[in-house]
Amino acid sequence: MRHVVGIDLGGTNLRAAVVSEAGEVAGRARKPTQAAEGPDAVISRMAEVAAEACEAAGLDRSSVAAIGVGAPGPLNTRTGVVVTAPNLPGWRNIKLKDKLERASGVTTFVENDANAAAWGEKWVGAGRDVDNLIMFTLGTGVGGGIIIDGKLLHGIDDSAAEVGHITVRPGGPICGCGNDGCVEALASATAVARRAREMVEAGRGVILRDLVGGDPSRIEAKTVHEAILAGDADSVSLMADVALDLGIAIADLVNVLNPEMIIIGGGMAAMGEYLFEPLRATVVARSFEAPARRARIVPAQLGDDAGIIGAAGVALLSVEGCT
Amino acid sequence: MRHVVGIDLGGTNLRAAVVSEAGEVAGRARKPTQAAEGPDAVISRMAEVAAEACEAAGLDRSSVAAIGVGAPGPLNTRTGVVVTAPNLPGWRNIKLKDKLERASGVTTFVENDANAAAWGEKWVGAGRDVDNLIMFTLGTGVGGGIIIDGKLLHGIDDSAAEVGHITVRPGGPICGCGNDGCVEALASATAVARRAREMVEAGRGVILRDLVGGDPSRIEAKTVHEAILAGDADSVSLMADVALDLGIAIADLVNVLNPEMIIIGGGMAAMGEYLFEPLRATVVARSFEAPARRARIVPAQLGDDAGIIGAAGVALLSVEGCT
Repeated sequence: MRHVVGIDLGGTNLRAAVVSEAGEVAGRARKPTQAAEGPDAVISRMAEVAAEACEAAGLDRSSVAAIGVGAPGPLNTRTGVVVTAPNLPGWRNIKLKDKLERASGVTTFVENDANAAAWGEKWVGAGRDVDNLIMFTLGTGVGGGIIIDGKLLHGIDDSAAEVGHITVRPGGPICGCGNDGCVEALASATAVARRAREMVEAGRGVILRDLVGGDPSRIEAKTVHEAILAGDADSVSLMADVALDLGIAIADLVNVLNPEMIIIGGGMAAMGEYLFEPLRATVVARSFEAPARRARIVPAQLGDDAGIIGAAGVALLSVEGCT
Repeated sequence: MRHVVGIDLGGTNLRAAVVSEAGEVAGRARKPTQAAEGPDAVISRMAEVAAEACEAAGLDRSSVAAIGVGAPGPLNTRTGVVVTAPNLPGWRNIKLKDKLERASGVTTFVENDANAAAWGEKWVGAGRDVDNLIMFTLGTGVGGGIIIDGKLLHGIDDSAAEVGHITVRPGGPICGCGNDGCVEALASATAVARRAREMVEAGRGVILRDLVGGDPSRIEAKTVHEAILAGDADSVSLMADVALDLGIAIADLVNVLNPEMIIIGGGMAAMGEYLFEPLRATVVARSFEAPARRARIVPAQLGDDAGIIGAAGVALLSVEGCT
């Protein structure tokens, strides 16, 4: 059986996994990115972490068919050049594919990290039985990936699938992208924590307030989940508001793309039915009947592994000449 | 040179054109739909109007390679079944493809009318040099079509590309689809006429009011255009508001699909730069820089012919086995 290596190029850590062509993880490795040392040092370490993952899998590096890297964008998937990467100092027009091929001796492909996660879920996760899906990763920001007819949607400049920057509340909170009322500014884990802090500061969410010892600055998205589980009605209501905002964007995409599945990943997916139930109701209320009935809204299944497995999967497809 | 026939199945008229494989119209015909007579009578008349278009083109019907029909949805493009058609009484699960093939003796393909218009613009209109575009037809309602990598996007149930039902003002005007704040409820020609009437009733738009002899009920979208040309500042300002609403939806699609071109057709396109200039500014302000710079926002070029030419084009592709 052939194997490929997937690497997640994060601002803090480099994570690698050797993945079989069946999508099973055979070995893993991890290293701090030490991004401050600049691109060349980071790329050397990427070759090292790939080699260590091979060692953990008991495989010789020569038996690896390809490396796939999930990298922060913007980037060019054809040339493998990373245009810029906000959390990686000095990364500007870095020929990641070429440099990592030289450092590792293995054919390398580069994919946007959010797209890689979507591909992971499509390959061996929640979306393995469908060919048309949209993934939202609701974490610090909101990442996205779109698969149409079994292929990742890249757009003409590899800039597609920025589903976190659909406007759902014009005039709403300012987003990191400069726009106002984006999904990311309302439904990311960061935004939910901010909304919960504002709620507590306004005197609501007593159970949530008590969970953080009366200090709203300690509220995180997961604290809101704890408050919900402890019976905080205001936190339940906040989650319904978040679901309404996110649901507007999903309803838009249901009407525009008519997908089979919407996958929700990232920290927010842990909210479970407190998020999914009002989300499904919003989408049914705001989109056409046939596509709304079709689009299953489900949690992601691979957790943090989606990105590395998906990066490996993209490399496998690319080396087969199928993308 | 091969020829195909495109037919637009409208609630009022059946329009047909013989189109060469180069996309040139060689002959036309038109008949009242007389929809009240039911599907079988309408389909017989479709065969007649196709034959008349062939006659007008000086072609024998046997020299026509295929018929393409642009039909109101929902429908199934693979089976050629029209599921329902709001303006065509009795049309419920009508096997349009099979029936028209029997009536005409010509291989027939069925496409959603808004998709057909987008394909017409892609084939020989504003989008002929690009492979990734989104079309908005701003008329009585708002139709849409999406072309990705040179192919119409249908979605899993032929329900995709309902770009008129992207929510841009949650809590805004109720749309015919049941949702609130859709593009269609804010930027269709119908919506613009309604917004202009409300403006005049509120005491603004004096030049517009005078153009309709003080009777707001006489205001149509084209009257608003006349008022703009006559120097009505409030009408210019209304058009900027409309552009802001439409621009939110376009910015969403620029971030999600990263297309090369946005084509605006339908009656509203006649507003010219009074619409396009604020529209472009909104999209630049609300979407990421690279995809915003890429997406040219342009008027449609084929007018009412987009649908019949596009339906013919879809038939040509289908008979070649390329869709």
